[in-house]
Amino acid sequence: MKQKETIYLASKSPRRSEILSLMGLRFQMAESDADEKTGRLAPAAMVELLSKRKAEQAVVPEKNCVVIGSDTVVAYRGRVLGKPKDREDAKRMLRLLSGKKSAVYTGVTVQVRGKDARTVTFHTKTEVFFDELSDAEIDEYIATGDPMDKAGAYGIQGMFGRHIAGIRGDYYNVMGLPMNDLYKTLIKEKIIFI
Amino acid sequence: MKQKETIYLASKSPRRSEILSLMGLRFQMAESDADEKTGRLAPAAMVELLSKRKAEQAVVPEKNCVVIGSDTVVAYRGRVLGKPKDREDAKRMLRLLSGKKSAVYTGVTVQVRGKDARTVTFHTKTEVFFDELSDAEIDEYIATGDPMDKAGAYGIQGMFGRHIAGIRGDYYNVMGLPMNDLYKTLIKEKIIFI
Repeated sequence: MKQKETIYLASKSPRRSEILSLMGLRFQMAESDADEKTGRLAPAAMVELLSKRKAEQAVVPEKNCVVIGSDTVVAYRGRVLGKPKDREDAKRMLRLLSGKKSAVYTGVTVQVRGKDARTVTFHTKTEVFFDELSDAEIDEYIATGDPMDKAGAYGIQGMFGRHIAGIRGDYYNVMGLPMNDLYKTLIKEKIIFI
Repeated sequence: MKQKETIYLASKSPRRSEILSLMGLRFQMAESDADEKTGRLAPAAMVELLSKRKAEQAVVPEKNCVVIGSDTVVAYRGRVLGKPKDREDAKRMLRLLSGKKSAVYTGVTVQVRGKDARTVTFHTKTEVFFDELSDAEIDEYIATGDPMDKAGAYGIQGMFGRHIAGIRGDYYNVMGLPMNDLYKTLIKEKIIFI
């Protein structure tokens, strides 16, 4: 795989960074202090808007480059769940999702800066089916501290995987970045080549 | 999570070992020299049979314990794909699966030895949707060496994830061990407790 410009990932998430590495991309991390407040929006519109802000606000040391911004939420029956505020909030979210089908939405913005400047934004949805969770299971999971930095208060890529009966769509999207759709976008935009 | 008996994993797969660790299980690896030849069987029957043989043949240093055996294949239109014999075979498998829906079957046997001896066998199926692969993409992937020890000549947990549009079912089953069904079985059989 070849790539011409430097790619910057405007995210602090170690999971997004891991996914880009798995894909085989060379990239660097960039700071981005985007305002994460939005009005009431549908999940797809919200994650697209936030991914765009994160890409646009990223501070990078060069003019010609590619910036990737991304945002993830969990949606259940019209409610949008971000990261839990505290352990009680995590418990509330996990009880809400217990035994139910919910969805993960990740918005991605690929911003080409400098020559041929352009911006592509999309979102990817993956359905997730939770088993019924007992209070003991929820408590044990929250005690690990794993839920606190994750939308919907769970991470599929760890112990919580044992409570997920299945998904429909891209697994990496649930982790925080839709590897397949991002790859296809980077190929189509001629940012990477095989 | 509590467990009484020692659990042995009758497998050399680093991926299965990783999945058991992620689940939060304490376990040890065990040697098993099971005969992997079967006659012509449907994928579900084949992986169940082989998982049972692997569990039963496992050599462990104690009498009262739990042994987990497992086997994974990829199935496409009545064909069963195991590990590729060589790079040409890997190429043939990836071309066959390109642009198609296939399925991963993992068979699991949980054998309780000693007191209350019993054996539970099941299989889990996950559907996998491949994008169309170009020859250049297949060649680049085969050059990494990743396909050679994997059923169907691909691993979802790495670079090849970029070519998988989605799955339906348990992601960990595609990696080689259905975390969710195994967890539920170990709970039901009172081998682990929350």
